[in-house]
Amino acid sequence: MLIRNAWYVAAWSTELGNDPIARVMLGEPVVLFRAEDGTAVALADRCPHRNLPLSAGRRDADRLECGYHGLVFDRNGRCVHVPGQGAVPDWARVRPYPTAEKLGWVFVWMGDPEQADPELAPDFQTRLLDDDWITHSGTIEAGCGYRLILDNLLDLSHLAFVHASSTGNRALAEAATIATEVDGDHVRVTRWMSDIPPAQSFVDYAHYDGNIDRWQASAYTPPAYIYVNSGSCAAGDGPGPECWLDDQGIWGFVVYHALTPVTPASTRQFWAVSLPTKWVPDGRREIFESQMREIPREDIAVYEAQQRVIDIVGAAGNLGDVDARGTLAADEALLAMRRIIRRLAG
Amino acid sequence: MLIRNAWYVAAWSTELGNDPIARVMLGEPVVLFRAEDGTAVALADRCPHRNLPLSAGRRDADRLECGYHGLVFDRNGRCVHVPGQGAVPDWARVRPYPTAEKLGWVFVWMGDPEQADPELAPDFQTRLLDDDWITHSGTIEAGCGYRLILDNLLDLSHLAFVHASSTGNRALAEAATIATEVDGDHVRVTRWMSDIPPAQSFVDYAHYDGNIDRWQASAYTPPAYIYVNSGSCAAGDGPGPECWLDDQGIWGFVVYHALTPVTPASTRQFWAVSLPTKWVPDGRREIFESQMREIPREDIAVYEAQQRVIDIVGAAGNLGDVDARGTLAADEALLAMRRIIRRLAG
Amino acid sequence: MLIRNAWYVAAWSTELGNDPIARVMLGEPVVLFRAEDGTAVALADRCPHRNLPLSAGRRDADRLECGYHGLVFDRNGRCVHVPGQGAVPDWARVRPYPTAEKLGWVFVWMGDPEQADPELAPDFQTRLLDDDWITHSGTIEAGCGYRLILDNLLDLSHLAFVHASSTGNRALAEAATIATEVDGDHVRVTRWMSDIPPAQSFVDYAHYDGNIDRWQASAYTPPAYIYVNSGSCAAGDGPGPECWLDDQGIWGFVVYHALTPVTPASTRQFWAVSLPTKWVPDGRREIFESQMREIPREDIAVYEAQQRVIDIVGAAGNLGDVDARGTLAADEALLAMRRIIRRLAG
Repeated sequence: MLIRNAWYVAAWSTELGNDPIARVMLGEPVVLFRAEDGTAVALADRCPHRNLPLSAGRRDADRLECGYHGLVFDRNGRCVHVPGQGAVPDWARVRPYPTAEKLGWVFVWMGDPEQADPELAPDFQTRLLDDDWITHSGTIEAGCGYRLILDNLLDLSHLAFVHASSTGNRALAEAATIATEVDGDHVRVTRWMSDIPPAQSFVDYAHYDGNIDRWQASAYTPPAYIYVNSGSCAAGDGPGPECWLDDQGIWGFVVYHALTPVTPASTRQFWAVSLPTKWVPDGRREIFESQMREIPREDIAVYEAQQRVIDIVGAAGNLGDVDARGTLAADEALLAMRRIIRRLAG
Repeated sequence: MLIRNAWYVAAWSTELGNDPIARVMLGEPVVLFRAEDGTAVALADRCPHRNLPLSAGRRDADRLECGYHGLVFDRNGRCVHVPGQGAVPDWARVRPYPTAEKLGWVFVWMGDPEQADPELAPDFQTRLLDDDWITHSGTIEAGCGYRLILDNLLDLSHLAFVHASSTGNRALAEAATIATEVDGDHVRVTRWMSDIPPAQSFVDYAHYDGNIDRWQASAYTPPAYIYVNSGSCAAGDGPGPECWLDDQGIWGFVVYHALTPVTPASTRQFWAVSLPTKWVPDGRREIFESQMREIPREDIAVYEAQQRVIDIVGAAGNLGDVDARGTLAADEALLAMRRIIRRLAG
Repeated sequence: MLIRNAWYVAAWSTELGNDPIARVMLGEPVVLFRAEDGTAVALADRCPHRNLPLSAGRRDADRLECGYHGLVFDRNGRCVHVPGQGAVPDWARVRPYPTAEKLGWVFVWMGDPEQADPELAPDFQTRLLDDDWITHSGTIEAGCGYRLILDNLLDLSHLAFVHASSTGNRALAEAATIATEVDGDHVRVTRWMSDIPPAQSFVDYAHYDGNIDRWQASAYTPPAYIYVNSGSCAAGDGPGPECWLDDQGIWGFVVYHALTPVTPASTRQFWAVSLPTKWVPDGRREIFESQMREIPREDIAVYEAQQRVIDIVGAAGNLGDVDARGTLAADEALLAMRRIIRRLAG
């Protein structure tokens, strides 16, 4: 269930330097490097001669030399040199993948190159490069299908149970007013919680001493992007729904997720949490960082346990992709997302 | 080749406390916990909402709360609360498994609950709770099918080769008179060895200085229980066959085994060795314990090597389940056991 | 794609002593031991009683006793004793494999024993036992099909890229005149490089201070043997083609490879490098040894990376066994070798 005609994140911009890096994306081996003009180059990571990954070779300016017998490929995947042999055979070329790069992410287009419009690459991750915001980010290699992670991010009530020691508390799950909007291929779900006790992080960083209003919004963009906004203010001061997607109020954060399927049961998750720098006092930086490392671990434990159960009980036990059985009222967004993927995957 | 309508050991009684524990039994994930009245509760270990194992959640009195979105299930597997949602959907329930508990073992019934009669749960393991006996026990996670372990326990001549440094010697294999009785679904095999040298353990603990009479009895009860009695006395003093199943003579021990298939090629083996406390002098306790840890290791090495060969050579090379080719005169009990399993597995 | 009627190396002669050793060869478990008369004995490594590998048992003179229930097999695989039982059943025998031993290698014939002529076992590895030559050898357990290794050894241009820090330099790949001869089931490829800079090892050991002539010959013998000769001398002094297979000139070495398929994607590679002892000064012995350990590691990294890519992209992406697409002018020998294997594997 993969959407091929789409931009997927292959790497953080900061990861892509002089050395070729290897990725498996949608089951295909891909090698990336940065050309001398700074452009990201992506090629099939398999020498057509004897199958060695080109990522095991050597980059020379805008060319890759295979580490086995020295065939040289240009940035378009054309072989331009075969050692000891004048002519280059017609089969000696590798598939070039269109690339794009925006706001800290390097994208690869995995489908028909004719349809690869860089304008379509996501640019919602604006805070990644915002100097007034602090960002923590990481890459997760999760042993699960990518839709289990999307499920997670479209039902933020899970903070009440999975992240109960930091960003979640029980009121998040019990007291939310949930609204789901589907607009073409996009899904947005908002959760509004009025006059609830603050979760631990909100006490620690915003020093609330009474109840708060809190809001969360998750926005899904195909193939596998999620933007989350999370805001709060003293109870009664909360803004209207028109602010829930962008405003963090007195304290909150935004989260960016880009998921790239590796195999049907493994996913590379690029995640980042951003918030105004002033909202994390210098004295709490280390604690904040360790919390940022802990939260993804809590989520991975859930994803991988789900996948293990699905593997054990198999299709018969699994209530399925878009079956309303196994979904709750809060899962309207999850169902919409899975229907969009099903439609776009064709 | 699994008997489903049967009691299987899920845990030692002492293992089952406040925290939910996870098991895979006959390929099914099961979560167990002890209810406030002390009863063992067993439920399918998979939240019907998004497939997280319930064992990853939290027990609250007699209820389990899923660790992902907080659905709460009672001890009968009925969902009694969905956070943030009034009604509980009809699909929100998990399979409850009948349980029983006797003499130190917690049992789960894996088949039709209508047939789950606690009276049928084994109670042969009487010495586990006998204050005058010392018991060493453990749980083995063996990478082999469960019948390979039953085979082992129904032909105790293997002590001569697998446990030659402790409980076995060559005379066990060469000099035994073997009698096999099949009574319905039960198999009993006895081995009588007259006037043989004592194996090392019998010298160390019973201080024999001459030949001995020795007897061994293995009794199989479906689906996968084995009781072993082992006794000895000075040569010529040995009792008649009517004592071989229960009497240990001057020195000996009983062994209890309960096997629970995890997958077709992995098994959880609950084992215990019991003997009168006075037969292990205080000064030898540590040595005895280390021997008790060593013997299972010697057996596991055999089981897993067998399974690897079976995996390599496949069905073609394996002489099969109940083929008399590949069995010896001493294997009458093994063949009877495998025929019973085949019949009861249906 | 396996040739069964052939001699395969099971072990170095020095490996085969008193204790039985276990091998998987062409997917079959084999146990080897040295009989009292010094002959190598090879039997199927599976007791026909309950499938324990006989290699887990005990050797007693020319017999193997199973480590589970003590069945004893003679060197022809016939069971000669069943403990506690007079008669030996007719099924109690294991397949004996013909063996041969020459010049340091122990061979097993994996096919029809009627065709097992010891004369057919290779004897090209003459320097292994030459007192005036120094030999470094080792055994590689490579996670790849055996033909990927043969490919490697029939195109020695790879030294320019895989072993660039020791025996290779770029001129090897760019400046070679290549000649391939196919003679029945045998393939020979020679590479002649005139007036090229010496690679690092040739400077270090032969102290060349100018350009050299260099030659390499690889000879393939089915099922999976490669002999390599490598020689050099000052530029202009190089001998004619009639010497390239045997003469090392001023400095060079021979390499012997015997490959034994374990499974379709794993191979045991027996390799040895030999050169006149005087060509490795005492002061450089340790460095030489560490280079000899490094070179196989460089090759394994290539083989296993190739296999991983082949596993990922599957048959569709792999240009295939004997498809000229995916091969270069230098691959004539590789194609000939693969055609021979295809023919002999039948």
